[in-house]
Amino acid sequence: MAREDPVAPGALLHDLGERGLIERIRRRLAPAGGEVLVGIGDDAAAIAWPPGQVLLLTTDTLVEDIHFRRATATLREIGSKTLAVNLSDIAAMGGEPRFALLALVLPPRCTVADVDELYTGLLDMAARYEVRLVGGDTCAAPDRMVLTVTLVGQADGPPVRRSGAQPGDAILVTGTLGAAAAGLAVLERGPLPVPEHVVEPLRRAHRLPTPRVAEGRLIRASGLATAMIDLSDGLATDLGHIAAESGVGARVRLDALPVSEATRELARLLGETPWAWAVSGGEDYELLFTAPAGPAAALARRLADATRTPVSLIGEIRPAGEGVAFVGADGAPVDVRPGFEHFA
Amino acid sequence: MAREDPVAPGALLHDLGERGLIERIRRRLAPAGGEVLVGIGDDAAAIAWPPGQVLLLTTDTLVEDIHFRRATATLREIGSKTLAVNLSDIAAMGGEPRFALLALVLPPRCTVADVDELYTGLLDMAARYEVRLVGGDTCAAPDRMVLTVTLVGQADGPPVRRSGAQPGDAILVTGTLGAAAAGLAVLERGPLPVPEHVVEPLRRAHRLPTPRVAEGRLIRASGLATAMIDLSDGLATDLGHIAAESGVGARVRLDALPVSEATRELARLLGETPWAWAVSGGEDYELLFTAPAGPAAALARRLADATRTPVSLIGEIRPAGEGVAFVGADGAPVDVRPGFEHFA
Repeated sequence: MAREDPVAPGALLHDLGERGLIERIRRRLAPAGGEVLVGIGDDAAAIAWPPGQVLLLTTDTLVEDIHFRRATATLREIGSKTLAVNLSDIAAMGGEPRFALLALVLPPRCTVADVDELYTGLLDMAARYEVRLVGGDTCAAPDRMVLTVTLVGQADGPPVRRSGAQPGDAILVTGTLGAAAAGLAVLERGPLPVPEHVVEPLRRAHRLPTPRVAEGRLIRASGLATAMIDLSDGLATDLGHIAAESGVGARVRLDALPVSEATRELARLLGETPWAWAVSGGEDYELLFTAPAGPAAALARRLADATRTPVSLIGEIRPAGEGVAFVGADGAPVDVRPGFEHFA
Repeated sequence: MAREDPVAPGALLHDLGERGLIERIRRRLAPAGGEVLVGIGDDAAAIAWPPGQVLLLTTDTLVEDIHFRRATATLREIGSKTLAVNLSDIAAMGGEPRFALLALVLPPRCTVADVDELYTGLLDMAARYEVRLVGGDTCAAPDRMVLTVTLVGQADGPPVRRSGAQPGDAILVTGTLGAAAAGLAVLERGPLPVPEHVVEPLRRAHRLPTPRVAEGRLIRASGLATAMIDLSDGLATDLGHIAAESGVGARVRLDALPVSEATRELARLLGETPWAWAVSGGEDYELLFTAPAGPAAALARRLADATRTPVSLIGEIRPAGEGVAFVGADGAPVDVRPGFEHFA
């Protein structure tokens, strides 16, 4: 007997939310199986092809005035970022990015110089990660730019999924958190009484994220990671994805979050809580992963030594019943805002 | 010494045109080489991977009110067509479509039922061609729907490119031409004094093209095809692409064009020239290909026997100096309109 659909046919996407929509789509697809190791609902799809190897596929769309604003970023930065967010998805599977496609929707007011700048940024980022741009599509449409990158990657073994975290595992994160959200605050609030040496690295973090490709590959190669995701929508939301896919809960210590000195200083100057950006701000594009508690600290040190990217232990995977909790230095739970949600 | 750029920095995309833009992008990329057998500028990119096999990658964006109108097609039809146009690109390389990604930009007014319908259409088409939808992206944005499909295909040998046509080769085409453009005319002009049995197949041709995947694979497997492209922008434009990429000219006999009885009848009733839709109308998604003149007729018969899709000889590849010409029954050149051009 078919289960009754709890969603009224006239319901809007707003009622369902982004996660609800993805779940709804996933229920309609054949489950992963055969060559398809990982289907919809992870950072990238993974296909066993050729035998013994894994093909990774991911696509991300950036829409003008939703994901970027031409008032606060150059087209060169936008071009770089469009590829970077996809590189981050391949990184989150522990894969090696290889080939990219770019589908462009351009308003007629775009100049040739605009498009040149966009490609300069995209090709700079591609060169840095040894990715080849092999195709795409272009069309004209009014309103706004829409940039869709598809990135093909590979891995020489099973990717790290969102679904393998176990109670007792340590929760780790690369780099620092909150700088991109702090940078967005700087860009959106206009001139602030804050020294340039504080705001410049924050603006840069927002405009030009650093995908953690080498880090992701080493994390996968360690054989220790039980789950991994990249931080695009904010720690609260993205850790929620690992928890939901793994069927676990989590406890994060706010005082363990790696927040940069510049982010802390801006928060102080604006009277904000520094961990708010780290927990609820999006677009850090760091890797969040889990590993058994025993070897976790040594793994973090090894990764940091090899890549010069700091790796921090920020909490522990807990049984599902505990939900995803953030706790203060005293161990008491702290209410946090969720991260970014489409259709909200 | 760098060549001077003939395009002024402030020039608009309109000044460059779609082909000019693609050329400009292509000049900035590393040429095909190494694993990359075919880069930007063909129906799909082709990568030698794994060794002995070829990976095909293509992406196409459909924008609401540019590529489709919700007033003249259901979301189910739009979903099917979004995948179909990508299947056609893989067909044009002689490949087998395998895995798809769908990146969706949805206006907040979309209902859950709308998205369900869109996926129903896309998954129907995917099932028909044994393609698996393995991932995607969704985001909300005002204005209009933007649907980007990326399709991954494979081939067990070198794909058929646009660039191999030789003077003397025959020009062949699958199916019939002009029905999609005739159907668009029906949909856009509103009620016409034309019998339903005439307009229904034309409307259907516009709404739901049939990608020629089996035909493309057989054409490649014959080893005879020297060039191939799918007809998305109209015969005049797409044959122009083969001519430009191959460095040849072409002569097409208008009276040899396969135009369906329904298309002819509608043209008669509306006082139009039937071949105008066949030459300048887009979206037929038939395969246009070239092969040495000697075996061409036998190849056409063999393909038609195997697939039950008619295959017609419509002209001859000529030296580059002759350009792309369309001639009447008397052999005299006839002026035709070019096909669809973005940024025009």
